[in-house]
Amino acid sequence: MVKAGVLGATGSVGQRFILLLAEHPEFEIHALGASARSAGKPYNDAVTWKQTALLPEVARNMIVEECKPEGRFAECDVVFSGLDADFAGEIEKAFCEAGKAVISNAKNYRRDPGVPLVVPIVNPDHLSVIEKKTADARKAGKEKPGFIVCISNCSTAGLVAPLKPLVDKFGPIDALTTTTLQAISGAGFSPGVSGIDVLDNIVPYIGGEEEKMEWETRKILGKPNADGTGFELVDEDKMRVSAQCNRVAVSDGHTECISFRFANRPPPSVEEVKQTMKEYVCDASKLGCPSAPKQTIHVLEEQDRPQPRLDRDRDSGYGVSVGRVREDPVLDFKMVVLSHNTIIGAAGAGILIAEILKAKSII
Amino acid sequence: MVKAGVLGATGSVGQRFILLLAEHPEFEIHALGASARSAGKPYNDAVTWKQTALLPEVARNMIVEECKPEGRFAECDVVFSGLDADFAGEIEKAFCEAGKAVISNAKNYRRDPGVPLVVPIVNPDHLSVIEKKTADARKAGKEKPGFIVCISNCSTAGLVAPLKPLVDKFGPIDALTTTTLQAISGAGFSPGVSGIDVLDNIVPYIGGEEEKMEWETRKILGKPNADGTGFELVDEDKMRVSAQCNRVAVSDGHTECISFRFANRPPPSVEEVKQTMKEYVCDASKLGCPSAPKQTIHVLEEQDRPQPRLDRDRDSGYGVSVGRVREDPVLDFKMVVLSHNTIIGAAGAGILIAEILKAKSII
Amino acid sequence: MVKAGVLGATGSVGQRFILLLAEHPEFEIHALGASARSAGKPYNDAVTWKQTALLPEVARNMIVEECKPEGRFAECDVVFSGLDADFAGEIEKAFCEAGKAVISNAKNYRRDPGVPLVVPIVNPDHLSVIEKKTADARKAGKEKPGFIVCISNCSTAGLVAPLKPLVDKFGPIDALTTTTLQAISGAGFSPGVSGIDVLDNIVPYIGGEEEKMEWETRKILGKPNADGTGFELVDEDKMRVSAQCNRVAVSDGHTECISFRFANRPPPSVEEVKQTMKEYVCDASKLGCPSAPKQTIHVLEEQDRPQPRLDRDRDSGYGVSVGRVREDPVLDFKMVVLSHNTIIGAAGAGILIAEILKAKSII
Amino acid sequence: MVKAGVLGATGSVGQRFILLLAEHPEFEIHALGASARSAGKPYNDAVTWKQTALLPEVARNMIVEECKPEGRFAECDVVFSGLDADFAGEIEKAFCEAGKAVISNAKNYRRDPGVPLVVPIVNPDHLSVIEKKTADARKAGKEKPGFIVCISNCSTAGLVAPLKPLVDKFGPIDALTTTTLQAISGAGFSPGVSGIDVLDNIVPYIGGEEEKMEWETRKILGKPNADGTGFELVDEDKMRVSAQCNRVAVSDGHTECISFRFANRPPPSVEEVKQTMKEYVCDASKLGCPSAPKQTIHVLEEQDRPQPRLDRDRDSGYGVSVGRVREDPVLDFKMVVLSHNTIIGAAGAGILIAEILKAKSII
Repeated sequence: MVKAGVLGATGSVGQRFILLLAEHPEFEIHALGASARSAGKPYNDAVTWKQTALLPEVARNMIVEECKPEGRFAECDVVFSGLDADFAGEIEKAFCEAGKAVISNAKNYRRDPGVPLVVPIVNPDHLSVIEKKTADARKAGKEKPGFIVCISNCSTAGLVAPLKPLVDKFGPIDALTTTTLQAISGAGFSPGVSGIDVLDNIVPYIGGEEEKMEWETRKILGKPNADGTGFELVDEDKMRVSAQCNRVAVSDGHTECISFRFANRPPPSVEEVKQTMKEYVCDASKLGCPSAPKQTIHVLEEQDRPQPRLDRDRDSGYGVSVGRVREDPVLDFKMVVLSHNTIIGAAGAGILIAEILKAKSII
Repeated sequence: MVKAGVLGATGSVGQRFILLLAEHPEFEIHALGASARSAGKPYNDAVTWKQTALLPEVARNMIVEECKPEGRFAECDVVFSGLDADFAGEIEKAFCEAGKAVISNAKNYRRDPGVPLVVPIVNPDHLSVIEKKTADARKAGKEKPGFIVCISNCSTAGLVAPLKPLVDKFGPIDALTTTTLQAISGAGFSPGVSGIDVLDNIVPYIGGEEEKMEWETRKILGKPNADGTGFELVDEDKMRVSAQCNRVAVSDGHTECISFRFANRPPPSVEEVKQTMKEYVCDASKLGCPSAPKQTIHVLEEQDRPQPRLDRDRDSGYGVSVGRVREDPVLDFKMVVLSHNTIIGAAGAGILIAEILKAKSII
Repeated sequence: MVKAGVLGATGSVGQRFILLLAEHPEFEIHALGASARSAGKPYNDAVTWKQTALLPEVARNMIVEECKPEGRFAECDVVFSGLDADFAGEIEKAFCEAGKAVISNAKNYRRDPGVPLVVPIVNPDHLSVIEKKTADARKAGKEKPGFIVCISNCSTAGLVAPLKPLVDKFGPIDALTTTTLQAISGAGFSPGVSGIDVLDNIVPYIGGEEEKMEWETRKILGKPNADGTGFELVDEDKMRVSAQCNRVAVSDGHTECISFRFANRPPPSVEEVKQTMKEYVCDASKLGCPSAPKQTIHVLEEQDRPQPRLDRDRDSGYGVSVGRVREDPVLDFKMVVLSHNTIIGAAGAGILIAEILKAKSII
Repeated sequence: MVKAGVLGATGSVGQRFILLLAEHPEFEIHALGASARSAGKPYNDAVTWKQTALLPEVARNMIVEECKPEGRFAECDVVFSGLDADFAGEIEKAFCEAGKAVISNAKNYRRDPGVPLVVPIVNPDHLSVIEKKTADARKAGKEKPGFIVCISNCSTAGLVAPLKPLVDKFGPIDALTTTTLQAISGAGFSPGVSGIDVLDNIVPYIGGEEEKMEWETRKILGKPNADGTGFELVDEDKMRVSAQCNRVAVSDGHTECISFRFANRPPPSVEEVKQTMKEYVCDASKLGCPSAPKQTIHVLEEQDRPQPRLDRDRDSGYGVSVGRVREDPVLDFKMVVLSHNTIIGAAGAGILIAEILKAKSII
């Protein structure tokens, strides 16, 4: 079993990491890290547990440590970070420098030129940068190097998943718009989204979210560069991306109404677009990763789907659902995408990235 | 006082007509029409009242009649129709043929070439077709003719309101996309939207809504034709419109995330766009109509506004709020529009249309 | 495998029966019945599926039949009824007379003196009336007789579950009040509860619910009569029950704030009450029924629990959660009870009743 | 015009005070107080405005001061406090000692033997203690003394309002139970109730609320003592009160399911109970206070009312609605009470108390 640590273990993302790890066939929870205020306490006393599933027994009495690459964390093979951006920068750096494999949900290193930004059902090939780094160290007779892999923004994950097979088959997308209806779990819960903001209401703004979606999409749909040490982003002028983000009264599951245009003329047919998404099998599935979705993209034919309450848990939240694929009078196509923001858009993505790294013997 | 009748008086739209008429300075409720099952009963016994405001005293004991241009309806100067589309076609036709001024919220005659489709803060000039018809009859020594004016679809109203002054000033829009987050009151309440559909959920589909928005926008932003008997629609190829419609857990107020591009290059600046919307004064205001908004379009500068719960009641629901006006990487601009779907998008629009007709001495 | 039929298969309760049967280790779906309008269609075409879990493959293409004890229904060992009360009376009678074992969620026969009204974690001993009937027929050399067993009202189930072990240990309860906060799934979904009724709102009334709770509690906490052919209800004067029922914006899970007083003085301590509920093991668990809860009653110590979203799925919805057990200034004790209304309060109760009947070789 | 100051002006209760004062015929906003962090800023910059009504112009540019009885506060005739309990104790004491009339929504002085705890539509007679204190000072040739009047807990207000006329007419209540379904606005909004806590959920616990209701009811339904300097509470054994408090997904309006028993036998009839509540006219109405409700208690006959969304705004939130009055199998009667928690249960109560004090020439 791979020994796993969780940084930011009492937070919203940390709790999801714990839930997913507690029943994992390959990983086991070995260390839980939180603020100095929580350190030394049994996890059950340190946390305000807010998940619908019960707090796993394995974590209940584990003593919380500070977020330092010491103690039980020193024994971990991989460390999942659910830290707030305010703390993630320094702590993750320290773990990386201490030789640890860090998989982070924080935004701090997403734009770092040497750090892969990975949606595991989309661009696990970006992990080749880590493979190379590890192989180079081995050749040089050095210790296994530490590294950071970043999980994408939750709404970015849902956006790029169905686009990946389309770009692979039909060539680049030159214009892309998305209007999101995002779940409140994406904002954590201390305090997270206030009740009064989502009761009989919409908040048409999520700080920094639109910029993240517009930028991250270009890195994720880009590719590792020639020397294998970094990434070539899709050029901003070649793929124009526009996002409008809203917070709505949904617990889990981001809905996105997207439209897009291919650079190549003529574009494919609606049927070709649907067929291509249906046939897509992500690498994680091919590698046999335990959490990989059986069906990466569910293409729904019912006219009023996907819906968050009904479709968010497909493939345990690791699959993405697409519906209402149709021609768009302005761009080429429009459709509705639903992804589980805390699974494929956050903690679950981290777990699946780790499974891929393990399958590739990097951890 | 103008004598007003309400068709479909027990339904959702009918109830709103009654609320608005009950306190109106120029109109008084004179007849209430509903199905044969309700006819003969006092209104209070026939209706399941679902408004937050109490059932007005004036309507409480009024005897409901069948929807025929007889009895008290024969004495009405104007008739507001909140009928379901299943019944509106024949009934409204009968009232029109009986010489009545009919203002209808139903969709049946919206595409009729001779029937104005009016958002009163946007295109009251389309009523000139009625003015001409009335004047022609007068000249010919005939009785005042009956006519129908259609209220637009609720989500169309919010879309075209801020665009009207922009088109007037900066010329045609050649591409327009909108993703709506629509309130449940738009679907009435017998049964209306089911609770389970909007609790922790989004329904990314509203039957017929996208087609209505895409088509009605072209009629409303078009103009009366040369001979004053019908309308020139904006050409489908000249203004491509794409709508994606969602039902969300909001009681009143449709939020729309829209983006658009002007045909003329270069486009105006963000500041010019905002200033033009701010300065817009609709004709209904100029005419001194009692329900006309003081400020037709509220341009909000707060980054997280407009929000339905906080902004839907501006100008008693007759004003439209716009926020987050900014450049769009794909088209020219994107912004968030909020309109009160049962006021400026339904019953309230009917009242304001009638006020304009009265100001122009047509009723 | 026991062959199971589902009556009212397209309705809300019917869908839950199908979900529970599709993965059942002892039962298999053999017949699906619905209205004449649906008969002859594959189930997938006849149903508007509204569950969060996907429509099980096994039911997808099964041809729906009319609700008659013929065809595939004639081959069923047990029939679960999710029929509306409007139809349940005659159909269930016909099945019973045809020798079928009918387990019904409808209210029609709950007050029938010879029909057991069973909450399977509370009073499976009431099934002895069926056992006797079956044994008598066997002795008389007759065919296995048909019978009906009624599932209790959903809110009654949550009320009586924690009371049962208390009454068994500390003697009768002489006064009992409950105020319920009931989920909308209890009302089905065609149309079920209207969205506008539960958005930013409470409806403090559910037709017939209070009467059901007040009456059913007396039958369930009563016992089979001396000759084993019917039931002795708890006397209305000996146990006064008062219910106030509210509909709230919760999808699944009925919350009840209850208070009660024992007839015997002095009453037990809070600790004794909690301990007795904790130690309660229902007969279904003792019999090893597959759906029986591991822990029948979860006694929570956190001051703000149980909560529907966090606790309704304990023991897959077959367990009941109790929290905030404390002394009551008016009666003896007050506490909060949460039960899953569509599992232990409806379809799940039916399945567990059937498991008990099977364990006792009645089906 | 009476000069009014608002302490805690940026908070939830403070904002409501400002809204109510901005359009008040007798009071004008003269000073706004908040934390040192906000002091010196225009109110519009200091506040995160969260009300559905827009920020009143009169307050928009007023400079916020620290909460000290100096500056513009020194010129105020009355000071309304929406301070958090953490700060209210010392600040309110300082204002009182500086001779100010303080009307406070905080809990700090509610149990002070010399401080009236007032629901203005219930027990304004308790203000006689202030009248006496003021008169005594005048006689003694001293300056007008400062004083504090406490507004009751929001859920207490709804509970005691309909009971007051019943106790006055039919004598003491000896047992009283209430289960509340409380709106989230009662918890303020920084952060207030978390969205995840009320989305598809109930929280069956509100810290300290049950104790407040059980204790405050005894002070409010008690009376000034013989020498006019304090209060005689209803004896705890003579009126046993039991509360169970829940937080639900409602923005404004507390619903309470209550039941109660009179000490005197036989109890009145349901009709007498309803009639007595209907006929009740509170003193504030008799005094002609501008905010006093026209109808103090609305007794609704519809079987599914009152409902928060439909009834909370009766009499601008100063009236209380009661429905479903019926006999209770355990106590004498049960019924549903709805009160607007931020009007008659908080800021509005403060305004109406001040109006009464003004009508009595105390301020």
